[in-house]
Parts: sequence; structure tokens; C-alpha cells
Amino acid sequence: MKIELENVKPRDIERRSFEIITEELGDRKLDPDKELIIKRCIHTSADFEYADSLCFSDNVVAKAMDAIRQGACIVTDTQMGRSGVNKRALARYGGEVYCFMSDEDVAATAKANGTTRATASMDKAAQLDKPLIFAIGNAPTALVRLYELIEEGKLNPALIIGVPVGFVNVVQSKELIMKADVPYIVARGRKGGSNIAACICNALLYMIDDRRD
Amino acid sequence: MKIELENVKPRDIERRSFEIITEELGDRKLDPDKELIIKRCIHTSADFEYADSLCFSDNVVAKAMDAIRQGACIVTDTQMGRSGVNKRALARYGGEVYCFMSDEDVAATAKANGTTRATASMDKAAQLDKPLIFAIGNAPTALVRLYELIEEGKLNPALIIGVPVGFVNVVQSKELIMKADVPYIVARGRKGGSNIAACICNALLYMIDDRRD
Repeated sequence: MKIELENVKPRDIERRSFEIITEELGDRKLDPDKELIIKRCIHTSADFEYADSLCFSDNVVAKAMDAIRQGACIVTDTQMGRSGVNKRALARYGGEVYCFMSDEDVAATAKANGTTRATASMDKAAQLDKPLIFAIGNAPTALVRLYELIEEGKLNPALIIGVPVGFVNVVQSKELIMKADVPYIVARGRKGGSNIAACICNALLYMIDDRRD
Repeated sequence: MKIELENVKPRDIERRSFEIITEELGDRKLDPDKELIIKRCIHTSADFEYADSLCFSDNVVAKAMDAIRQGACIVTDTQMGRSGVNKRALARYGGEVYCFMSDEDVAATAKANGTTRATASMDKAAQLDKPLIFAIGNAPTALVRLYELIEEGKLNPALIIGVPVGFVNVVQSKELIMKADVPYIVARGRKGGSNIAACICNALLYMIDDRRD
């Protein structure tokens, strides 16, 4: 078999990728507000299931973009997720990305309380006195704790990106967060990941940049 | 709908996840050498396609574990991938993780040569005088450049993990690397990612740890 590489210039690779995604989605109509988020998740994963699995609360994209413009910070549940967010783009609006998973006090609290570090890191994040976007790509226990904090009136996030991946309580934690009174973007089912969490943050950032031009 | 969370202790979540994966794989027989790598990829992605798409060169797992034991370093093509590798586990054998994607000299070389930064970062990595494992989860151009460097006799990696994700030259770059004379673990097709690249590194590290006990 002869392997033929497609001749695409470096700066055109992403554009060409989105063209292919659009072609393969075919007649499928996506809500224009959500289209770039859905396509970027497919771009990040090569998995077209995201066209069906992504769930959005009412008007969430406009709300999320407003929060970013007003300097919202992003909290992740993995260093990978933190690493994947475009921090330079976020900083233009005054935001930063936090991940408390490796903090010694978080490890100690988790051990003392018999919880996951993800749970303890959400409690730490809830102390921040800033508008917050949570980008949860790994730990369903983080999502469950966010639900509890919201129900207890201790947290009022600007957005929860609920896309943990896996097999234990992942499906349930996502259904739970969609019952909370909070703006959300959730990938229903088992799939997701820190890469998906970061890519949804970046999609929102790039949408703001596009509209600014 | 009532949402019922499964009651699993934090330390048991990963074990329970692997049980579920094993149950759902059913009668499917996996090569014992490769089983933990395949299952960890499914664990990371909730995507059972990895049971079919992962391709292994002859005896690659033993070769890769030997390389790690002898202090091989890992080179990634994203900061996310770097972030996901268990650096503490790798350091036990003397290895480090490098990612040159954000380096100014790499950006300058890429611009001068009209290549991607991923290509230029592979050229920089090829200068390292150490046994190297490449964990490529994002850029097919990195994989293509590794193929060229190997063919030109300029690089002799201990292992290439070839799992870029996407739509432009991703499939081809993986087929190409499987034609090179190099130990490889490749996820055939469009799927993969920095998370999958990191998880294959970690699977190898944990397999060494397990056998050490």
C-alpha cells in the first residue's frame, strides 16, 4: 500500500480539519451558537458522538462568554486539563486557570475526610472569591461535590463544564449536575476527558475572539 | 428519574473501573502482555474501539519496559501529554519528560522552514543524547518527521507511541510509522490524543512497578 500524505500547509491544518468535520456531519443541522463547541470537541477526539452527547443549559454559551469577558477564572480537576486551556487567551480578559489537585492541603483534607482529592479540591476552589468556571474532565466525584455545594448555597458558578470520562458514577454525576440550577455544558454518557474539558474552554475563548474582530 | 450513585471508596474507583471494562470486554481474549495497555486506554477514553485499534510491533512491551528501566526519557508533542505522564514513576528509573513545543527556538525554526512546530520539536529532540520514547498524541507532522529521521539514520528511538488524533494525515502518519524499523505502539485510525499518549506511558510504568513487587 502506498501511503499518500495530503499536502496541507501548517497554518491550514486546523481549517482543513474543520472542513472535513463539516463535510462528514453532512445534512446534520447544529445550533449556530453551539456549533463551534461541538465541532471542536469532534476535532479534539475524532469522535462524532459529541454531536449527540453534548447538552447545554439555556443560553449557556452567551452566559459563559460574558463570564469570561468579566474575568472569570477556570478551575480544572487535572493538571492535564489546566495544561490544555489557552491561558494566554484567558488572560486577555483577566482570568487564570487553577488546579488544586496536587496541593498538599488538598491531599491532607481528602485523607482526613475519606474523600477523593477531586472532592477536596472543589472545596478549596469554592473558597475563591471570583467568578468561576469549573472544567471537570476526569473526576465524577468533583462533579458530585459541586452539585452538593450548589445545593447547600455555598457555590454559585458561572458555568460547569461536566465532561468526566469513565465507568464509576460518571453517567450519574453528569445527570446530577444537569439537575442543579447552574449553567452547564455536559457530555452525556461515559465519554469526555481533560482534553474535552480544555477544548470546550478554548472554544468559548476563540468564539469571543472571533466576535471581537 | 432518581439518580443513584454507586458506593465505591476513593481507593477502589480505579479497580472497579477495570472490573467493568473486563466485564464488558466479555469473551474477548487480549494478549496478556498488552492487556493492561489496552484496558488503560479504554479506561482513559471510555472508548472500547481501542481493543481493536491498538497495534503493537513485535515484542514491543518488553522492549519498552527495558528502555524505561534503563533510564529512557519521554518526548511528547504537547504540554498536555507531558502533564499526563507520571513523572515521579518515570524518575525512579532516571527518566524525564520533555516537550519542546513552547520553546522559542522551535517556533523560530518552524517559521523559517515553513513546518509545524511539532516537526521542529522532533528535530530538537533528535539532538538529545539519551534513549528516547516518543509519545505523540497530537501532531501527525511529528510522526512523519520521526519517520524521516529514522529513514535518514538520524534517530533510533527505543519506542514510538503513535496516537495522534484528527483528520489531516493522521491515518497516514500512523501507517507510515508502522513501516519504519522501530518499536511502536500505534492507535490505527483517526482516534488517539495526548491523554492516550500519556496513558500508554503510564501503563508501561505501572506494569514495571507491578512486576517489581
